[in-house]
Amino acid sequence: MQYSPLVKRIAGDGADAWVVHYQARSAQERGEDVILLSVGDPDLDTPAPVLERAIERLRAGDTHYTPATGRQHLREAIAAAHLVRSGQPVTADNVIFLAGAQNALFVTSLCIAGPGDEVIALEPLYPSYPATLEVSGARMVRVAAPAAQGFRVDLAALEAAITVKTRAIFFATPNNPSGVIQSESDLAALGDLARRHSLWVVADEVYAGLAPNGRVPSLAAELPEQVVTISSLSKSHAMPGWRAGWLVGPRQLVIHAEAMAQCMLFGLPGFVQEAAVTALSVAPAAESRVREYCAMRRELLLAGLVGLRGVKCFAPDAGMFLLLDVRGTGLSGYDFMCELYRTERVSVLDGGAFGRETSGFVRVCFAADEELLRRAIVRIRRFVETLVR
Amino acid sequence: MQYSPLVKRIAGDGADAWVVHYQARSAQERGEDVILLSVGDPDLDTPAPVLERAIERLRAGDTHYTPATGRQHLREAIAAAHLVRSGQPVTADNVIFLAGAQNALFVTSLCIAGPGDEVIALEPLYPSYPATLEVSGARMVRVAAPAAQGFRVDLAALEAAITVKTRAIFFATPNNPSGVIQSESDLAALGDLARRHSLWVVADEVYAGLAPNGRVPSLAAELPEQVVTISSLSKSHAMPGWRAGWLVGPRQLVIHAEAMAQCMLFGLPGFVQEAAVTALSVAPAAESRVREYCAMRRELLLAGLVGLRGVKCFAPDAGMFLLLDVRGTGLSGYDFMCELYRTERVSVLDGGAFGRETSGFVRVCFAADEELLRRAIVRIRRFVETLVR
Repeated sequence: MQYSPLVKRIAGDGADAWVVHYQARSAQERGEDVILLSVGDPDLDTPAPVLERAIERLRAGDTHYTPATGRQHLREAIAAAHLVRSGQPVTADNVIFLAGAQNALFVTSLCIAGPGDEVIALEPLYPSYPATLEVSGARMVRVAAPAAQGFRVDLAALEAAITVKTRAIFFATPNNPSGVIQSESDLAALGDLARRHSLWVVADEVYAGLAPNGRVPSLAAELPEQVVTISSLSKSHAMPGWRAGWLVGPRQLVIHAEAMAQCMLFGLPGFVQEAAVTALSVAPAAESRVREYCAMRRELLLAGLVGLRGVKCFAPDAGMFLLLDVRGTGLSGYDFMCELYRTERVSVLDGGAFGRETSGFVRVCFAADEELLRRAIVRIRRFVETLVR
Repeated sequence: MQYSPLVKRIAGDGADAWVVHYQARSAQERGEDVILLSVGDPDLDTPAPVLERAIERLRAGDTHYTPATGRQHLREAIAAAHLVRSGQPVTADNVIFLAGAQNALFVTSLCIAGPGDEVIALEPLYPSYPATLEVSGARMVRVAAPAAQGFRVDLAALEAAITVKTRAIFFATPNNPSGVIQSESDLAALGDLARRHSLWVVADEVYAGLAPNGRVPSLAAELPEQVVTISSLSKSHAMPGWRAGWLVGPRQLVIHAEAMAQCMLFGLPGFVQEAAVTALSVAPAAESRVREYCAMRRELLLAGLVGLRGVKCFAPDAGMFLLLDVRGTGLSGYDFMCELYRTERVSVLDGGAFGRETSGFVRVCFAADEELLRRAIVRIRRFVETLVR
């Protein structure tokens, strides 16, 4: 039977990079002694008031249809949270609640670009980006935030990549995997290009709650008609399984996104939406809980890997991940990942999954049980010392 | 700012048809005396064991990431339920769990057709179909199941509509709004056309749990490489707000659907998935509860509207809806809907929302509180009698 051309555009998911992770997860399920530092899903529970609110709404029968945009008071709560984070005053009309930030990226991608268009994505980038941006039929153009520049965007390369076909610039701030927060000055230059070329700016701020004070520099207030801000509760509240995310943008985009949400989702669970309202109401406490959890472990890992010959830590501004530069060992990120797992049963992720700039790196998630992290440090040290010897 | 051409394809949502429903819902929220029979969301709660399972999993911390396809044991449970319903033996590999049947339709649409293609949809059809089928870039071609033929498909018209560009035939069985179940013989003829022209057959069976014994004739066992079966828990279990649906189809389609689910959703809530497993395990009881609820009210409404001059009931095979042929009143379905609401505050849906064949009809949902339904009957009778007088 025949499939649409679209299926080829979404087929590449960088599955190779996950091979060790899947092996490790299976081994873990079999009860074997493995340490998983390959994904960003900390061993933290959903904040208790959020959980109780969901249960209360379930028991109250809040299990019927809901509006495709999300409920009005949830959209108002998101608008208020967005103002605090970005400084951009918006109303519920600028907000649509969606099934996670990934879903919001998907909707944005399909609404703003199509066949014949180009969209720029700053690299390193999350492995789901190519499929998400090319599902629309647009071509994704990678612009490096080079390792040699501390993973800050190469503004000359960015400008050179813009053509008449360019519709948008996508980036994550804080970045995954580098943990770099876009600086005010880099954003200003990027915003200048966006203004001059009438480009969409799509800021994936899913890790922004983990930045100092839960805030990152944003272009949203300055370019309200061009900036789309995407976020969720997954990272900031340790609620990835709830699929609670959103986009904030110009009114017309939200109207289009609503039409898409209507035929794509037909509304999301009411009890999840009410839990999300509660989550936003306890955001300061919930976010600092995860932030402190991560910050403490970031220091632990950085200290634990210091002075190790052949590898260098790239200290992140924020987030749950640390890039380990393994070029000094003579191994690629991929081979380092495979060998580390084979010999020490520690699962990390090949940096190559995020693009060429990180192919000599591995990404280590430090949002893990403290004791486990200490054991992982011992094993990583032992592995690297064997290599260098 | 520029949007993709796609946004135009999804913009028409037949919003006019819903104008009375939205007014009525607002009036209801203000505490006014209105009767809403315009949507299919019965006043039934989620089955208790399903609710308790979700709560148990929430309390157990099942709030982390899950696989994009849905969990293995859920897919196995869906495969088993599908065998019972359709007679087609499948495995978990043929199944993907998605955020409701609407989401499954969306995924199927994008995976099997694209720009330059045509997809046939049997009319009357649910108002979300045009956007859902044309989001891919394909053109939707309507083929009537004419009112004059009791809303059974016109096979000659179906055959005549097939061109070299045709990729698929979409239909709902039982149909919404007509409640007609595709007969064995009509399906056989449709399957013949599909085989000869290598067409996908996409059967939306979201109301199948409400058919006698929870089963409808299906082509799935006969044409396993061409048939996609879509269903959910929304109608059969009165769980619309859970967004729990799926598609069952050939392995390759599921592989493509997984790639799409990865960049569209990135997994669905684990606690919803575990609740869905429980729902499937109690399906016979849960489905007969809703079936009996609907069957009793179907009889009530049919009896209540009998002998009314100017309107005729079209008795459905199954489902939650009754089409009322109002052509004898001289009003269109749209005007009947508006006037009935204005004078009697009963909200029904203009049949025109489902296509031309039903433009002289209104759709009345009978899946409502019994006392409310009795009051609605009195009001509808009074309204029609005023009209005819």
